Amino acid sequence: MAATMIETFERFARQHLPVFDSLGIRVEPLSPNLVRMRLPFNAASLRPGGTIAGPTMMALADVAFYGLLLTRDPGATEAVTTSMTINFLRRPEPADLIAEATLLKHGRRLAVGEVRIAAEGITEPLAHVVCTYALPPSPLRARTDAEVS
Amino acid sequence: MAATMIETFERFARQHLPVFDSLGIRVEPLSPNLVRMRLPFNAASLRPGGTIAGPTMMALADVAFYGLLLTRDPGATEAVTTSMTINFLRRPEPADLIAEATLLKHGRRLAVGEVRIAAEGITEPLAHVVCTYALPPSPLRARTDAEVS
Amino acid sequence: MAATMIETFERFARQHLPVFDSLGIRVEPLSPNLVRMRLPFNAASLRPGGTIAGPTMMALADVAFYGLLLTRDPGATEAVTTSMTINFLRRPEPADLIAEATLLKHGRRLAVGEVRIAAEGITEPLAHVVCTYALPPSPLRARTDAEVS
Amino acid sequence: MAATMIETFERFARQHLPVFDSLGIRVEPLSPNLVRMRLPFNAASLRPGGTIAGPTMMALADVAFYGLLLTRDPGATEAVTTSMTINFLRRPEPADLIAEATLLKHGRRLAVGEVRIAAEGITEPLAHVVCTYALPPSPLRARTDAEVS
Repeated sequence: MAATMIETFERFARQHLPVFDSLGIRVEPLSPNLVRMRLPFNAASLRPGGTIAGPTMMALADVAFYGLLLTRDPGATEAVTTSMTINFLRRPEPADLIAEATLLKHGRRLAVGEVRIAAEGITEPLAHVVCTYALPPSPLRARTDAEVS
Repeated sequence: MAATMIETFERFARQHLPVFDSLGIRVEPLSPNLVRMRLPFNAASLRPGGTIAGPTMMALADVAFYGLLLTRDPGATEAVTTSMTINFLRRPEPADLIAEATLLKHGRRLAVGEVRIAAEGITEPLAHVVCTYALPPSPLRARTDAEVS
Repeated sequence: MAATMIETFERFARQHLPVFDSLGIRVEPLSPNLVRMRLPFNAASLRPGGTIAGPTMMALADVAFYGLLLTRDPGATEAVTTSMTINFLRRPEPADLIAEATLLKHGRRLAVGEVRIAAEGITEPLAHVVCTYALPPSPLRARTDAEVS
Repeated sequence: MAATMIETFERFARQHLPVFDSLGIRVEPLSPNLVRMRLPFNAASLRPGGTIAGPTMMALADVAFYGLLLTRDPGATEAVTTSMTINFLRRPEPADLIAEATLLKHGRRLAVGEVRIAAEGITEPLAHVVCTYALPPSPLRARTDAEVS
């Protein structure tokens, strides 16, 4: 994905997503099928036991999946999260976190995706997220009979 | 619930939960069966469309249920969130949010609970959360045959 | 709720929901705000350890929430489940199960609800379900600005 | 995976999981990292609209992940599902369903996994499941400091 697309998303996110800047999230590859974002390590995200706070990981996942939707449909800025299920799998080390968002379904009204969060350089995920977004009306997405929604 | 218990929890939360202070969360009633916390309205929590960011509501829910667990078992500070499912139901107005956490199960190893988040003075919930915490070993919780975990 | 409404629902369910008859589900009170259904105890639903199979409880929850939607909008037979999160809280005794479905949101496109399943006569829930249904278009449900979906 | 392992699992499932036989589930590859099971098409699983009932897919996912756990630890027959989140993504065609279960985490007390369900020969998933099982004590699984649970 071209650097210009990442720049465009980052400019948008800085203006509209307060959590993007406050957490210092950085966008890495960004394509219609995979978005990867990095959360630089920051002691302010810790909770008792020294691990990174759950809501911080949720925020990272939310931004990553939102970035994936905008990459596929730049006009979908009004997409809103309708549900999110997060499983915390391992206690994070004090390291940068890498979130990778992929798509399970991009329907007419709902998009469903997965985000895996891992510490940099580690294969086993720290957290796994399934999330659903309600999409604004779009001429790009035609209805098909097989769609649930 | 006595004011001293709220003070104790708030002092603990200020030291150990960065999100508690950064969001300005305040504790209202706190009892073994119900915890209510307030998130004062803050423009920094907004996202595109003017609504309060999902991760902010998740953070509020997480803190509220953690507060409920500590109220029941003050030694359980090492309890960690293992999963959370959040449904966003309505777009929040610019108002204080009230989170009410209740318990579905307080097992030997897992606690499961619900948190409803609503704008102050409004009955219909803005968000609904189901969350699970893994509990540290405790002499207070004896095993029963009927427990799943 | 009038007995005729329960009869109408049961007749519909027998024709269209194979699981309704195969599990022997019976409808108890049925109102626009609460649906209660009973799953008579049946040894065929057991799994290792002697507990009632999870999918059986999921089927019961699914039918109960579908019944609640039809009670509110009898034309919504094409509503389909889009997601379900179930937490199994306690091992069921060999007893009838009672499922109570309530509504968290009845939007224009999505309905979100809760179902609590308990053994007859026991207060503490055996399982807790949050589910989302995609709704067919309906003239009964006008859009409001506050709706997420 | 050797055919003997599949035979062993199928014999166990026929005795202990009523749903295995009633749905006619068949085991395909079975390895410590991936279990694939097939649900032959059966008109009795349909619901209004002609699609396969959600609880049937949940039952399939539950059996597939249970099979994966037993493949990794044959003594874990007492493992029980503690939670399951299922997203229904597309309306199934009248075809055999294939469920593939993989592991996100195999901890000391909890195992978390994913199951993707697709119609035979189709890449795009019909349903996506995240599930958690509480595990019986096992000498095979040593505790590590990094584990959440």
